[in-house]
Amino acid sequence: MSGDGGGGGNRAYGRKTFKRSRSHFADRITADGRDGWPVEPGRYRLVVSRACPWAGRAVISRRLLGLEDALSLAIADPVQDDRSWRFTLDADGRDPVLGIRYLGEAYDKRETGYPGGVSVPAIVDVPSGRLVTNDYQQITLDLATQWSALHRPGAPDLYPPALRDEIDSVMAEVYEDVNNGVYRAGFATGQREYEAACTAVFERLELLARRLERRRYLVGDTITEADIRLFTTLVRFDAVYHGHFKCNRWKLTENRVLWAYARDLFQTPGFGDTVDFDHIKRHYYQVHTGINPTGIVPLGPDLSGWLTPHHREELGGRPFGDGTPPGPVPAGERVPARGRP
Amino acid sequence: MSGDGGGGGNRAYGRKTFKRSRSHFADRITADGRDGWPVEPGRYRLVVSRACPWAGRAVISRRLLGLEDALSLAIADPVQDDRSWRFTLDADGRDPVLGIRYLGEAYDKRETGYPGGVSVPAIVDVPSGRLVTNDYQQITLDLATQWSALHRPGAPDLYPPALRDEIDSVMAEVYEDVNNGVYRAGFATGQREYEAACTAVFERLELLARRLERRRYLVGDTITEADIRLFTTLVRFDAVYHGHFKCNRWKLTENRVLWAYARDLFQTPGFGDTVDFDHIKRHYYQVHTGINPTGIVPLGPDLSGWLTPHHREELGGRPFGDGTPPGPVPAGERVPARGRP
Repeated sequence: MSGDGGGGGNRAYGRKTFKRSRSHFADRITADGRDGWPVEPGRYRLVVSRACPWAGRAVISRRLLGLEDALSLAIADPVQDDRSWRFTLDADGRDPVLGIRYLGEAYDKRETGYPGGVSVPAIVDVPSGRLVTNDYQQITLDLATQWSALHRPGAPDLYPPALRDEIDSVMAEVYEDVNNGVYRAGFATGQREYEAACTAVFERLELLARRLERRRYLVGDTITEADIRLFTTLVRFDAVYHGHFKCNRWKLTENRVLWAYARDLFQTPGFGDTVDFDHIKRHYYQVHTGINPTGIVPLGPDLSGWLTPHHREELGGRPFGDGTPPGPVPAGERVPARGRP
Repeated sequence: MSGDGGGGGNRAYGRKTFKRSRSHFADRITADGRDGWPVEPGRYRLVVSRACPWAGRAVISRRLLGLEDALSLAIADPVQDDRSWRFTLDADGRDPVLGIRYLGEAYDKRETGYPGGVSVPAIVDVPSGRLVTNDYQQITLDLATQWSALHRPGAPDLYPPALRDEIDSVMAEVYEDVNNGVYRAGFATGQREYEAACTAVFERLELLARRLERRRYLVGDTITEADIRLFTTLVRFDAVYHGHFKCNRWKLTENRVLWAYARDLFQTPGFGDTVDFDHIKRHYYQVHTGINPTGIVPLGPDLSGWLTPHHREELGGRPFGDGTPPGPVPAGERVPARGRP
């Protein structure tokens, strides 16, 4: 999502109760091109921030499915300014493919004077420079199901038809209480609202820990979209949600099952190699001045534990099912050392 | 200390670098009464907040030494208003012994128009209603050495003459890097200032953990003033300093040695029975609106671990030396259930 209530024009945390905006641009890129946007190699550009958990889903899916060559990647500066996400990490402050300085320019090309927030993940049509979709709930499902013709050999099935009901059901609970729950806790403006959200976060995490005690993945015995969506919150938990969002009943490192589950995924190619803790910490602590007025970014937590043995392979499971792990990260997309554990 | 830069008029965190104010009223209450304030049973009232680590020292010392009958205790509301510490926990909002609503009234009786902050711990002369001292560095040393005639039978020697050099040296390091270090981190207004303070906090804690690995207490083999001063910071570490002050390299619960050391003291009569986590959390999170604008108080951390076995008795040591533990907490001074683990 966008500024998450931060610098993206979407200052949702000023409201009484935090409500996540729906995506405004919900066109889909499909195999049959029914919305006018057919899947084509090289035609689209995925714009993300490595700080953002909603964008993080798409970055992981793209890696797992081997879509790096088919769908190029633009990485925004983790710290937005008053015009929102910007390409200040690139030479001359412009995205080299789209030629724009702000992601908002692609929004403007799509709809002049659009008054909503500029959010990531966003997929932009390169030839026209127009935004196609910022529908963070749909983008990854389409990468998994509509882009199959462009998947790498050995790509896993992240949304297998036989398991979709169960995956959807788990994802709905994870979204409400965990993915979005941490934001409701962090952007609460009143004690009661915060307590309800924080309590729900930990109740759901306890249930998930019980579910994952004897099974390696959330649904079935392979990695699915459900794992990707839980991972993107867990990997940010101790670094930002614990302190900055006050979800501090316990640290992820203190929950034996979830900490091992998160490390297992982190150490699986396609997950940890997309994570930039430097971007994550700077985004949350510097952008949300409403809850961190000084903008100071904490030195902690110690991240070295992410690389320690997790022993989850003893539970069995086949991470990629009949498929294989993705290859190495493309050279231009490696997370800099300062963002790694 | 006072508002710790919070609501006490001492808004030190607005400055470029956090500097702790010196105590302005440094008269001493002594056995020989050389400053005009002789030790006398029932004459003085110790005013504290259970939230404040500097006041916490005095509350613990008073319990360990059995001075409850000789020196009465006033407990201020953990949340100051613009007139600072107040007695809103008492009937009619007045301290029942001093008859005042604000601690500041005792300061005014001592020095009209005193422009400094109102701080705890403070000792007030009951007959005149005048503040005697708010010298948080000296008060506990005097309780240990000047009030001996009123100590309970079996009171420990918290500042034994033969060990004073070593105790002073340890306390100086603990003060600089830990007791005050967490405040320098938390009230830093710039990234560099914060990082220097936070780094020093954890470097010192690592050194202290090494020192305490094979010895039960900081100096000698009994509890001394040095342990009291380290304890008052450690007991607040995960509850407030970790998140609110961004001292988040690790939680106390993640440091095996210091966590066991802190639990050992917590479970020793006179330490844990003075600690009110509810007061601690509400004070820091509600008063320091400069770093927590919403005033929301986190639900965490889970405190149940404070009562788990620590096994430090295996290191030997005699907590009270040739003395004995203090008796039960006086009925009117018990920490309410909501403040206990």
